[in-house]
Amino acid sequence: MKLEHIGIAVKDLEKSNKLFATIFNQQPYKEEEVESEHVKTSFFKTGESKIELLQATDPTSAIAKFIEKKGEGIHHLAFEVADIDFEINRLKAEGFELIHQTPKDGADNKRIAFLHPKSTNGVLLELCQEKK
Amino acid sequence: MKLEHIGIAVKDLEKSNKLFATIFNQQPYKEEEVESEHVKTSFFKTGESKIELLQATDPTSAIAKFIEKKGEGIHHLAFEVADIDFEINRLKAEGFELIHQTPKDGADNKRIAFLHPKSTNGVLLELCQEKK
Repeated sequence: MKLEHIGIAVKDLEKSNKLFATIFNQQPYKEEEVESEHVKTSFFKTGESKIELLQATDPTSAIAKFIEKKGEGIHHLAFEVADIDFEINRLKAEGFELIHQTPKDGADNKRIAFLHPKSTNGVLLELCQEKK
Repeated sequence: MKLEHIGIAVKDLEKSNKLFATIFNQQPYKEEEVESEHVKTSFFKTGESKIELLQATDPTSAIAKFIEKKGEGIHHLAFEVADIDFEINRLKAEGFELIHQTPKDGADNKRIAFLHPKSTNGVLLELCQEKK
């Protein structure tokens, strides 16, 4: 599996875009709203992988709940897989708890599914596969 | 800047090695103890970047304190820079708070310095440069 991106929960996307633009010495290369997830996102290239900043667009968003509980910070790691349905079944058979039993649509033209951090050392892991 | 690795704080390196070996479908490619940091580490390849698992070897370790406060989970993101002294000075001039004013020795044959998460949206960021 290849690390595809790291998701970082932020309160104010515009402010955080400036912050990370200064650190990385580059601008975000795209912004995208994912209405189904109630988030606005922006992306930075960091080599082969990406940093995805996520700001909640309403209080029901998982990102809003995360920030309320833990504050701003790293939210998830996403790994690219060749066959997401196969990986979901493989990891379920290995005893991992999946948050999504079947893939759903995510940002950046991907099918995604999350593993529950209870079964992964407190790390929220996303599996993702580019849509054809 | 290129993402070099993601550091994950774990309680039991052996147990977590097995867990991530199952997820990534590969064994860690090396283990290393960093005595100055009071940690044992292991590394997995995830494309161009790496996952570094960190277990404290004594209670004074930053990893032990992190787990006590927040539980197991993602501890830091490390970015490879071409000139770490230059980047430290650049980011200080931009107003970022550095935990290390000058680079120190880290795992994996690197000089490293951390930015304080207060100034980086709650993300503990490491700058690293391979030693010649």
